Amino acid sequence: MALPLALTMGEPAGIGGEIALQAWLRRGDGVPPFYVIDDPGRLAELARHLGWDVRVRTLSAPQEAGAVFAEALPVRPVGGRPHAEPGRPDPADAALVIAAIDAAVADVQAGNAAAIVTNPISKEALYRAGFRHPGHTEYLGELAGLATTPVMMLACAELRVVPVTIHLALRQAIEQLSSAAIVHAGQVTRAALVRDFAIAAPVLAVAGLNPHAGEAGALGHEDIDIIAPAIATLRAAGIDARGPLAADAMFSAAARRGYDAALCMYHDQALIPVKTLDFDGAVNVTLGLPFIRTSPDHGTAFDIAGRGIARPDSLIAALRLAARMAARRGGA
Amino acid sequence: MALPLALTMGEPAGIGGEIALQAWLRRGDGVPPFYVIDDPGRLAELARHLGWDVRVRTLSAPQEAGAVFAEALPVRPVGGRPHAEPGRPDPADAALVIAAIDAAVADVQAGNAAAIVTNPISKEALYRAGFRHPGHTEYLGELAGLATTPVMMLACAELRVVPVTIHLALRQAIEQLSSAAIVHAGQVTRAALVRDFAIAAPVLAVAGLNPHAGEAGALGHEDIDIIAPAIATLRAAGIDARGPLAADAMFSAAARRGYDAALCMYHDQALIPVKTLDFDGAVNVTLGLPFIRTSPDHGTAFDIAGRGIARPDSLIAALRLAARMAARRGGA
Repeated sequence: MALPLALTMGEPAGIGGEIALQAWLRRGDGVPPFYVIDDPGRLAELARHLGWDVRVRTLSAPQEAGAVFAEALPVRPVGGRPHAEPGRPDPADAALVIAAIDAAVADVQAGNAAAIVTNPISKEALYRAGFRHPGHTEYLGELAGLATTPVMMLACAELRVVPVTIHLALRQAIEQLSSAAIVHAGQVTRAALVRDFAIAAPVLAVAGLNPHAGEAGALGHEDIDIIAPAIATLRAAGIDARGPLAADAMFSAAARRGYDAALCMYHDQALIPVKTLDFDGAVNVTLGLPFIRTSPDHGTAFDIAGRGIARPDSLIAALRLAARMAARRGGA
Repeated sequence: MALPLALTMGEPAGIGGEIALQAWLRRGDGVPPFYVIDDPGRLAELARHLGWDVRVRTLSAPQEAGAVFAEALPVRPVGGRPHAEPGRPDPADAALVIAAIDAAVADVQAGNAAAIVTNPISKEALYRAGFRHPGHTEYLGELAGLATTPVMMLACAELRVVPVTIHLALRQAIEQLSSAAIVHAGQVTRAALVRDFAIAAPVLAVAGLNPHAGEAGALGHEDIDIIAPAIATLRAAGIDARGPLAADAMFSAAARRGYDAALCMYHDQALIPVKTLDFDGAVNVTLGLPFIRTSPDHGTAFDIAGRGIARPDSLIAALRLAARMAARRGGA
């Protein structure tokens, strides 16, 4: 039997618990076996409150999850009961939120979980409790002992995108854009496409920064000065990187068929096309970690938490993609 | 009988001629009557060269076009024979390219054409011949005696977008973004949606500039300092403008249903979602002119010109939209 996936609790004031329950309820629909690292009592009570027929089974070890999954939602206790109410995070829960992440990493590193799927956290809530990492991904990188920065990919059925700069004001993204960052993203993306997506010779489409990729310098010089040299470096290393391409044209249905992933220069250049195509089914994948990690492409959704109306589509897509990636690594 | 549409020659080294021939060949498929302002001999020869069964009829007045259209492609002579070969523009043709635009404006202003549809031009070719206007649209604005700047809209079946800044390097677009420009775009867009798109109470979605619309200032201040005040001004004027919205989420299928047009802060923020959804069928509409003007949302395509493989979809969509808009103005 394939190893189960470890799903973290995420911010308990958010929608993580209810979408985990929903994903388990849809287990007949090809959702791969997973267990949640959370408080079993909290999840059982949430299911009761929502009127959902979910049996919760407390695990004493992650290895039991596979056998339990068909009958009950397997929960590995996170070590305490969160205080938060839906929509109202409590800083006292920060230690549990982090403990769930730590346990997931420990499980996957010990070979007891196939991959990690993380529910959304609230950075603000963690910061108030003294968390000192820029975000979820950076924390995972540190737990993994990674010397370099992991790379974020957003994937839906029709398109994979990698933002080279992420959570920066647009002005700062332009200022901080560097050839080195593009080359790093290209190398990590290429390696992941080969290893985890079973693409033997990946093609990377590299977006220009400016309209029409700068029109040969008439509309800005970053395309010539920063992006083109990075593409040359990637190509010299044997990576089939192409561009800089006009960003408005490269995401058309015909253009998308010509590459395996698009390297984008800023947050919205990457996220607009993915979310335009598939808002609910897009998955966030962290590339460059020693283990597999995916997550739903949405936040804690405090505004609708606790009402049972949050859509589990992205979490289910994240679970499915993590299982497929793990299978390609040969169940390691 | 409704007035015909006036279609300009555009750059004769580009694909304008062959997509005009193709649009006429599809006249049975609901393409509204139009005439081309071009050289009749050039178009007849192009049709022969491509092996297409197109009869060309030279008009002595635009009023004849409607009666001719079912039997032959009506051509109003532009006043000379272009020198360009496919893919190789000739600066000597600049006067004819401009004459076609001038004639179209004269026809629509005289009440002999319902609207103008323009084939793509090459600004570089015109600049070399001494053309001094920033582009096609600005030239039309001057011919129309317009005191304010026209506003560009890209429209496909699922989405209408209006870029507030257009052909600028991204860095310059940020620097030049102003509340006044957003307010102007919002006012012109709202008026056009009411008059030409028959939307009684249009809703405008206004994009933020920064990721997640700046996250309350954590990711840049333009959303607070420039965009929010413009929205307040529009709302005070009775215009239902909403935002600033996170640009990655606002183009999802569900979000799109909630508004009639999106005001976008820079070129690719507007064009990525439209071209991701409908690369071939998107139409460029110029709002704020006293007459109706649409154009296909592509360039001269020198690389494929003369081979008969250019797709006429966007031109046909531009002709259809111009006819619909003209009908809503009551055939004026």
